[in-house]
This record gives sequence, structure tokens and C-alpha cells, in this order.
Amino acid sequence: MPDAVELIRAKRDGRTLTGAEISWLIGAYTAGLVADEQMSAMAMAIYFRSLDPAELRAWTAAMVSSGERLDLSGLPVPTVDKHSTGGVGDKVSLILAPLVASCGAAVPQLSGRGLGHTGGTLDKLESIPGWRASLSGAEMMTVLAGTGCVICAAGPGLAPADRKLYALRDVTGTVESIPLIASSIMSKKIAEGTAALVLDVKVGSGAFMRDITDARRLAETMVALGGEQGVRTTALLTAMDEPLGRAVGNGVEVAEAVAALRGDGPPDLVEVTLALAREMLLLAGIDADPAAALADGRAMDRYRAMIAAQGGDPDAPLPEAARVQTVTAPASGWLHRLDARAVGVAAWRLGAGRARKEDPVSAAAGIICLAKPGEQVERGQPVLELRADAADRFGRAREALADSIEIADGPPELGPRVLARIGL
Amino acid sequence: MPDAVELIRAKRDGRTLTGAEISWLIGAYTAGLVADEQMSAMAMAIYFRSLDPAELRAWTAAMVSSGERLDLSGLPVPTVDKHSTGGVGDKVSLILAPLVASCGAAVPQLSGRGLGHTGGTLDKLESIPGWRASLSGAEMMTVLAGTGCVICAAGPGLAPADRKLYALRDVTGTVESIPLIASSIMSKKIAEGTAALVLDVKVGSGAFMRDITDARRLAETMVALGGEQGVRTTALLTAMDEPLGRAVGNGVEVAEAVAALRGDGPPDLVEVTLALAREMLLLAGIDADPAAALADGRAMDRYRAMIAAQGGDPDAPLPEAARVQTVTAPASGWLHRLDARAVGVAAWRLGAGRARKEDPVSAAAGIICLAKPGEQVERGQPVLELRADAADRFGRAREALADSIEIADGPPELGPRVLARIGL
Repeated sequence: MPDAVELIRAKRDGRTLTGAEISWLIGAYTAGLVADEQMSAMAMAIYFRSLDPAELRAWTAAMVSSGERLDLSGLPVPTVDKHSTGGVGDKVSLILAPLVASCGAAVPQLSGRGLGHTGGTLDKLESIPGWRASLSGAEMMTVLAGTGCVICAAGPGLAPADRKLYALRDVTGTVESIPLIASSIMSKKIAEGTAALVLDVKVGSGAFMRDITDARRLAETMVALGGEQGVRTTALLTAMDEPLGRAVGNGVEVAEAVAALRGDGPPDLVEVTLALAREMLLLAGIDADPAAALADGRAMDRYRAMIAAQGGDPDAPLPEAARVQTVTAPASGWLHRLDARAVGVAAWRLGAGRARKEDPVSAAAGIICLAKPGEQVERGQPVLELRADAADRFGRAREALADSIEIADGPPELGPRVLARIGL
Repeated sequence: MPDAVELIRAKRDGRTLTGAEISWLIGAYTAGLVADEQMSAMAMAIYFRSLDPAELRAWTAAMVSSGERLDLSGLPVPTVDKHSTGGVGDKVSLILAPLVASCGAAVPQLSGRGLGHTGGTLDKLESIPGWRASLSGAEMMTVLAGTGCVICAAGPGLAPADRKLYALRDVTGTVESIPLIASSIMSKKIAEGTAALVLDVKVGSGAFMRDITDARRLAETMVALGGEQGVRTTALLTAMDEPLGRAVGNGVEVAEAVAALRGDGPPDLVEVTLALAREMLLLAGIDADPAAALADGRAMDRYRAMIAAQGGDPDAPLPEAARVQTVTAPASGWLHRLDARAVGVAAWRLGAGRARKEDPVSAAAGIICLAKPGEQVERGQPVLELRADAADRFGRAREALADSIEIADGPPELGPRVLARIGL
């Protein structure tokens, strides 16, 4: 039997771990035989030494094997899912899952909650009165089979090793490691049972990866891992320097997603959503035009059915914030930059996000971007609308927004939202 | 207030930590506010990024400040101590403390127990019937003032941060870091209150540092740290490729130390002991010849007084092993190599050492080197005598000794035992 200290020292000293060693380590960690302090030292050693492709394959497979793997092969239509590495104003899943379902695929989206300045899909949907994120396995299958899509929390049986390791990395400064990020994301998606997967790897100030080289490396790593484990995977690198759409928060993002499903979505949100939908349909082998499904209301129908199937009332009014303030343009000119990270942090401080896993989030808090880069503003004109449940939330949110707005003469050159495609 | 994750990430990313940050970290860790899994990630980050001299100074000072610092300034004679980084057959302290005391210094030797293949001074002395390692502060001062020397366990109040961190490093693969080793050793010795300190940094197969460059770096780091904290410190680098003396174990090492005090010590042991004694007397400002004190029995008198003052009977017979086996020379010729690490591991497996802190050790188990490098042997002649309490101990001990003996034609060239001197 291998010994944890021996394996930590081996990785620390640059030796390649065998598949058997990795399998033992992940299994023993899940079972509590390897202590948290040992696994955090290992994670830090991996931060410095990385994992080579064979090690990463074994690591990911061991994380999948630590729990159950759903079997979706009984569904009559192809399965395809999407995962985003997280951005500000990223409500794409809410539109995309019903949209792709309405084109004939099944979308089994097991999602997470927000931590830090990027929001979580489940937190957003929970602003809908009655909607439930936690479904049993049977309930999940019923919603998926009935409406073609489901967005719910992953059960504790899926990749429990990842659940434990993710929480550990969060408190030990070992999050920022490409092999650890890639294996964490992919183990959950592989265990979920989807046959195909499109990754939305965000790049920019509001993203986890600020640099396109790192983002590309992460995307390539995950695309390769998916292929090796039998999940057809591609990735789009998409820009995350400004918020996606105009709404950042929970209820406000649901409202914007509904507007997009109605055909009233902001152009950047629609552009990214349709690009991801086309990728997903391509992987699912379905020849359909998602723009048409959005335009003719089919996607909206699926959305309403999915929300209702999970106990939510799609017609119920969303919570309104008790307090509203605005941030105005410091000068007249063209808006060149609206920093995604600053807006994300501000929305978080307004109450939309949580500092610790056990904190509640506010359904009503958030930010509306009244102007977006590329638009003209007059000095004193409101650029951001800040919403919160209590007046004491605004001070620190405003601090986060210092230097977040850049105004200059003449229109900015805005780049594309979809930066690159990786895979197949 | 700093945040542990922030500090881990800072060190991981190569940023220098401030004195205030380090002081907070060590204090919070000692108080249990920083978790073990965070400190082990930090230790691994330090393994890769090291600590610069200012960081190391702050780290060591914070470890000292985590507990009490003894005040030995009331003693009428200069205080001077010795610390060895650990070797095989290293019973030097048992001879050195009374020897230096007999020359007019006070030697307050707070020692540790063995872990792994190197033995611990307290384990060795505990083979003397009645001898007690644990003394109260008052008892320690009484023995020290009365006999000029004391060898006892450090109380829990001395550098508790080091106690906690050392146990953590042991199970997380983060022992082998020069700044962490240096701060661990020096924080204990500084807290102990000695005015001067000689370090015996062992180099070779049986030592922690196998490479003289690393050993020199460790010695230089510790000598500088001592000077900065007001403890006059020098270091000798001494060879540890073969066991020191002929006895390796607990009771067998006490017997050899007593023989050396009687003037019958093996030459290598006497050479190293006298070199360290001269260093200690030099630092203490005492002009005396330790060889004379050894020859005329003064050192032996002090030894007997010290043992008796701690409850031991210096005349009581030492425990005898129930089982004895020998390892014979595989060929005739000159013994060129007798691997220190192999002999240390074998003695450990025979019962002289412990695998875990809570294990007991055998007083009688160990190895006698019947031949040493530089001596001639006949094929079949016993080279090692293995001693154990039970017959089932020999198998794995013999395994450790495979390839430990090298015999060749013609006498080997043996290098000096004292390789270098660092300091002042």
C-alpha cells in the first residue's frame, strides 16, 4: 500500500505518480485515510510541479470513480451539456438549456452555487418563487425526460472526492492550478453522464483566467480529458472583460434571461448563447437553427416547462430591492471600459454573492449596467444602477467600483465575444 | 488582520511576507485559528519558494515568541549548548555535556526523541534504570546549577509553534526545507536560553543532509540566525557516511559513551566529541583542554552526578538483548564502506527506534559494528552484531543491510571526521 507522505514527496521532487498511486490517494482521501493537511500539501506540490497527461487522466478517473456515474443512455435523444468557468452576468445557462432542448437534445445541467465575485446558476434560479435546486435522482430524470432539460444541484454521490478537494483548495490557496481545475470540472461532468460537453472558458478581467494563453491551455486540457473519458468535448474561449448583458445578480439575471428568451436579449448575451447552442447541437449531431428556436418562442416554452417542473412559478414577480442608488458618468464621451471584475465584486458586496459557502444570498441585490462599452454617455448620466436590501450595502460596493468606468473621446474598438474554438 | 489564504497565495506566487504577516500567521496557527491544512500548504509553498533572510528572522522570532524563553543569566558560569542534526550512533551529547561542564561551562541541553533511522538522546538515556527525561523547570535548574549540565526533554511551553509545525511537517512531506529546518532548530535553542551554541551539522548517507553544499547552507543559515537573536553560534560539518563509534541503539550507545568517558572510546567518536568541546569552550570564553578533562576522569564524575541527579543509577547494569545474530563479511579484504543509513534503519527495525511518536523503543536492541571502515576482515568473520528482544525482528533488519558492506583489496582512503567549520 502506498504511503501519503511518500507520494507527496515524490510529487514535490518531480517524480511522476503512477495510476495506481493516484487511484489509491484519491480513494484514501475520500475515505478519510489521507488527512486534509496531507492533501493540501499535495495540491500545493501539484501547483508547482503540475500533472502530466497520464497523471491527469488517472486523477480525473479516480475522482469520477469516487462516486456514482449517472447513466443517461436510456434517453431517446442525444445528451449534451455546457460548463462555464464563471463570469460576471453569465446567465447563459438559463437560456441555453431550454434553447438546446427545444432543438431536440437533452441537457442535464448539474450546476453549482456562486462563491466570490462570480454568481452561481442555482442562486439565480432560486430567486424564482417555489423553484427547487435539489432534486432526487428520479426527479431529475423525470424533469429531463419531460422537458428536455434540467438545471439542478449535483447530488452528494457524484464525484465526492472533488467536492471534498474543492472545499479544501478554496481555503489553502491551491485553486489556481490548471490540472486541478480541469480535473475538478471534468470529473463532475463525466460523472453526470452527458455524452457531449461544450466548455465556455471565459477570458478577461472578470474571469478566472485573465490571460488567453492560460485559458487556451485549460481548454485544451479539458477537451483532451473529455475525449479520453468518452465525452465528446469542445470549448469556446469567450471574452469576460465587461459583464455579459446588462444585469448582474440573481433575480435581475433571471429577468434578463427571460427577456432574451422573449427575443429582447442584449446582443452580447444573445451572441454568446447562440454560439454555444450551435456548438452543442453540432456535438449532438442535430441539424437545427437555435436562432429560429429563440425567435419563435419554442425555447421560452421549454424554459417555462422546466421552471414549473421544478416547482417554480415562471409568472411570479421577482423580488424587488428595497434600496436603489446609481453611479453616474464622471465625464461625457464614449464608454470604453466597464470592468467586469469590479462590477462582479460590487454586486457580490451588495448581497448577490456569498463570502462563505453557508452564507445566504439576496435574490434582489445586484447591478444593472445602464450603459455598456461602445455607448455614448453624458457627464452625470447614470451608468450603473445598484440594488440592495439594506442601505449599509452601498459603501463597500461603491469602493469596488472606483476606476471601473473608463470614458474617452471617440468610440472604442470592441473585439468579438467569441475569441476561439478548441477541439475536434 | 491578514488572511491565511491570502498569505499562502502570496508566498506561493513569490511575494515576500512582511514581519507582521509572519508574526500573525505563527501566532494564529499556535492558537488554532489557522488550520493544519492551511499551514501544510504554506510549508509546501515555502519548500518551493524558500524564505529570505528577513522572513526567516521573523519566522524564527515568532516561533520563539509563541512560548516562554528561559532565563539562564543567573548562573555564575557561561552557558553553551550543542545541537546535532542527527546521525547514526551519535551518542556525542552523553559525553560532551559533562565534559564541557567539567571544564567550567553550564550546558543546558534540552533534547528530543528519535524518529526514523536516527536515534534520540532521551531514548538512549532512558535505558539507564531510574533516569527521568521529564523535569520541571525548577528541577532542571537544580540539576544544571548542581552538576553544570542537564539533558532533559523540552517542556511544552518552549516554542509550542515549532512543536505543532514539526509534527505537521512530518506527515505532509515538508520536512526537507532549509529555512523550516533552521527555524525549527534555532527557535528551540533560542527559547532554551543558552548564550552560545555549537551546531554539529552531519553530512553523508546517514545524515539528513547528504550533500555538503546543502549542509553548509543549512549551517550558515543557522549561524546567522543565532547571531541575530543574540546566541553566539558556530557550526562544524562532520562526516556521517558510517556510524559514529561502534554502537548503534539505546543501551549500547550509553555503554559506549561511558567507555569514552573512561578513556576507552572509539577514535572517531572521541575526535568528534573533542572538536565540538573545543568549539563550545571557545564560545564560552573558557581556556581549558577537554582532552585532559576526559583523561583525568573529571568528565566521568560530572556524567555520574548528572545521571544520579535525574534519578538514574550510573552503576546499574544496562538491559541485555534476548536475541543476538551476526552479519558476516561476504569476502576477505579491507572494509571500505559500512553504510550509516542502512545500519541506522536496521537498528531501528530491530527495535531501537520508533515508526510513530507514540511507539515505545527497546533499550536493548541495536547493532554493534565489530568492524569499521579501514579495518581488515576475513570472509565469514562477523562484521555486525544485531541485538533484539524478539526473533521476528531480524528479517527486515537484515533486508535493510543488503549492500551496506563494501569490501575491497587494499586499504581505503578515509577522510577526516570534521569537514569544515562555519561561523564567527
